[in-house]
Amino acid sequence: MSDAPRTPRPREEAAKLDAADELSGKREDFVLADENGERVVYLDGNSLGALPRTVPARLAEVVEHEWGRLRIRSWTESGWWTAPERVGDRIAPIVGAAPGQVVVGDSTSVNVLKAVVAAIRMAREDNPARTDLLVDETTFPTDGYIAASAARLTGAAIRALPADGIPGSVGPRTAAVLVNHVDYRTGELHDLPGITAAVHEAGAYAVWDLCHSAGALPVGLDEHGVDLAVGCTYKYLNGGPGAPAYLYVRRDLQPRFDSPLPGWNSHADPFGMSPAYEPADGAVRGRVGTPDILSMLALEEALTVWDGVDIEAVRAKSLALTDFFLRCVETHVPAGRVECVTPVDHARRGSQIALRCPDAGEVMEELIRRGVVGDFRRPDVLRFGFTPLYTSFADVEHAARVLGEVLAERAA
Amino acid sequence: MSDAPRTPRPREEAAKLDAADELSGKREDFVLADENGERVVYLDGNSLGALPRTVPARLAEVVEHEWGRLRIRSWTESGWWTAPERVGDRIAPIVGAAPGQVVVGDSTSVNVLKAVVAAIRMAREDNPARTDLLVDETTFPTDGYIAASAARLTGAAIRALPADGIPGSVGPRTAAVLVNHVDYRTGELHDLPGITAAVHEAGAYAVWDLCHSAGALPVGLDEHGVDLAVGCTYKYLNGGPGAPAYLYVRRDLQPRFDSPLPGWNSHADPFGMSPAYEPADGAVRGRVGTPDILSMLALEEALTVWDGVDIEAVRAKSLALTDFFLRCVETHVPAGRVECVTPVDHARRGSQIALRCPDAGEVMEELIRRGVVGDFRRPDVLRFGFTPLYTSFADVEHAARVLGEVLAERAA
Repeated sequence: MSDAPRTPRPREEAAKLDAADELSGKREDFVLADENGERVVYLDGNSLGALPRTVPARLAEVVEHEWGRLRIRSWTESGWWTAPERVGDRIAPIVGAAPGQVVVGDSTSVNVLKAVVAAIRMAREDNPARTDLLVDETTFPTDGYIAASAARLTGAAIRALPADGIPGSVGPRTAAVLVNHVDYRTGELHDLPGITAAVHEAGAYAVWDLCHSAGALPVGLDEHGVDLAVGCTYKYLNGGPGAPAYLYVRRDLQPRFDSPLPGWNSHADPFGMSPAYEPADGAVRGRVGTPDILSMLALEEALTVWDGVDIEAVRAKSLALTDFFLRCVETHVPAGRVECVTPVDHARRGSQIALRCPDAGEVMEELIRRGVVGDFRRPDVLRFGFTPLYTSFADVEHAARVLGEVLAERAA
Repeated sequence: MSDAPRTPRPREEAAKLDAADELSGKREDFVLADENGERVVYLDGNSLGALPRTVPARLAEVVEHEWGRLRIRSWTESGWWTAPERVGDRIAPIVGAAPGQVVVGDSTSVNVLKAVVAAIRMAREDNPARTDLLVDETTFPTDGYIAASAARLTGAAIRALPADGIPGSVGPRTAAVLVNHVDYRTGELHDLPGITAAVHEAGAYAVWDLCHSAGALPVGLDEHGVDLAVGCTYKYLNGGPGAPAYLYVRRDLQPRFDSPLPGWNSHADPFGMSPAYEPADGAVRGRVGTPDILSMLALEEALTVWDGVDIEAVRAKSLALTDFFLRCVETHVPAGRVECVTPVDHARRGSQIALRCPDAGEVMEELIRRGVVGDFRRPDVLRFGFTPLYTSFADVEHAARVLGEVLAERAA
């Protein structure tokens, strides 16, 4: 990072980039000010997406009319019962899946258990000698904890290793592999097509966690033959705090999907109330208990902002935003003050930039005080997420400039 | 059931009972009309509780202000992060638990898996010869399916038997017992104190499902030394469709609670993001992934209707309602047309009445058309739930009268 003097150039460049941005109109679909109506540069959509403007009215209708007036009738009349599959089909195109393979419900952690146990069971069924579960070693922690539980419950052996070491490590004893598509901390994009192909080459099953990629870049689940995938909906999908997660089960694997959570919602005839479990066909098999309707329908409404959006355009803007941020940091931030831990190579970059600096905790506090919201990941990482649907290039320039000011003041 | 002529007596009695009802004022806290503002006699609160009046405004605030304006800040500033324990402590007194033992989140089915696996693990730790899981044979189906999964995952043997046969069947090989407090279909109240004592006498662990009892009658979890319990919040607790469920772990067992779903929210230091799992102390250990905030805070608001309510008064009114319903059915319904399958003995009756009749499906459809909402459980059961906070004696009399009319017309 250079000592170059601050010039008006980045602001002019931001204005030009915003003027040429074909997604700029989407920004109006979100609430982006703070409680006093002040501008916030919100670069934390990779933790909690901003509120889509139409959600409050829709949720009020769900609560006041569907629950308040229709009550139990809404399970059929308002389409509550089929919401998990319906909302799943709204997510499907965003992650490159044909309809009928994504179901919404439960948390990401719970879906990791379903997916990993099911993957291990399929592998065992293929060949009982498949005993190993591999997990990328920088995984978001909950995936690692739940994968360890899945291994314990199925008698598998778990091993953590770098994601790029997986293709060289899979073999005849590998049952399943769990990988995060984008690393939550560094923003590194892992090679989903390559790793999935290597896992398949070895005869094992690939489970992908899409929390930090879905909605920010093309995933191509069907195209790359991914077996199972999970993801949350409250980051780039803007579904609201703790909104229900989703599970993808590739169509041809659905008849073999053997869930550790065979709740009544996944029964072939749930209202038959049979004491014997018989799984439903299709993605429904991934359901468990009664779906959380208020959150589910808030999410469904939030997903309407994706109407007409091309995920390739989102990716192009995401890369332009992160490229521009890095250039602005170069311009605004005192040399040597931060170290970028996100890969500069586009093929390995998600939609966030992680900067390491020793006083990251205090720096982020000060940034937030000045209306630039990113987050801090211990011990020393400043994390800035770029949501192509509502982040402008002016936001990016402003954030880098304020970051430079804060760092300069703290160094002085 | 008699052929007695219809007299105005039941209506007068209803008016007297309503006038003397100390809980009658609570009715105003709920929305009870239909979409046209017409009166509905809603006897399906044992499936989905009615909307408490203050929920829409609170939920609008959560969405528009906490999510919309504060966004990520709300995890701390709006108390989102600690909501699962805080809302758990609001449910605790309703089920007879001291604070710090109830945590809210996930569905009932998911909580059944946590509780049953944890119970089996504790029993095994006590004595590896404890290999058997007993489940009441008329359980709500999902409990049976999930218990079978828990048995499969832990290598336990599962056996279904009548709830009243459990005390005579537990022994040195019993690990855990899963029982529904109130049978979802018949409304039979199982003997929680007696069964729990027998399970403990045998050295095993008792897990209770409170879905159909919590909020309708005293449960006394602490008093009776229950080990683990689960329940939903959308029936008598009025939390909204698919609202998050809860898990009770008795305080002295919390250090031994070994969850099959050790998600990052149950970690001792969740934001340490450590690759090694270390469980938190207390009820927090029952958490899994990111809590579903919109539904959770709707539930929290819904629970405010319980302020100042004595659960013993709720039980007294519940029994008075079901007694009165049975008397009104006696008066209004043609003799022999229905058979009551709910125990008449107060000690064995929950807060619903189940009537068997061969054409139950068609009868319920017609009742609903006439504004009396109960539900139909295949093959031949009419189910009427009585929610003491909002069901009036006039409702009860009206429902029985309309039922009598429908049955008389269909017989004619």
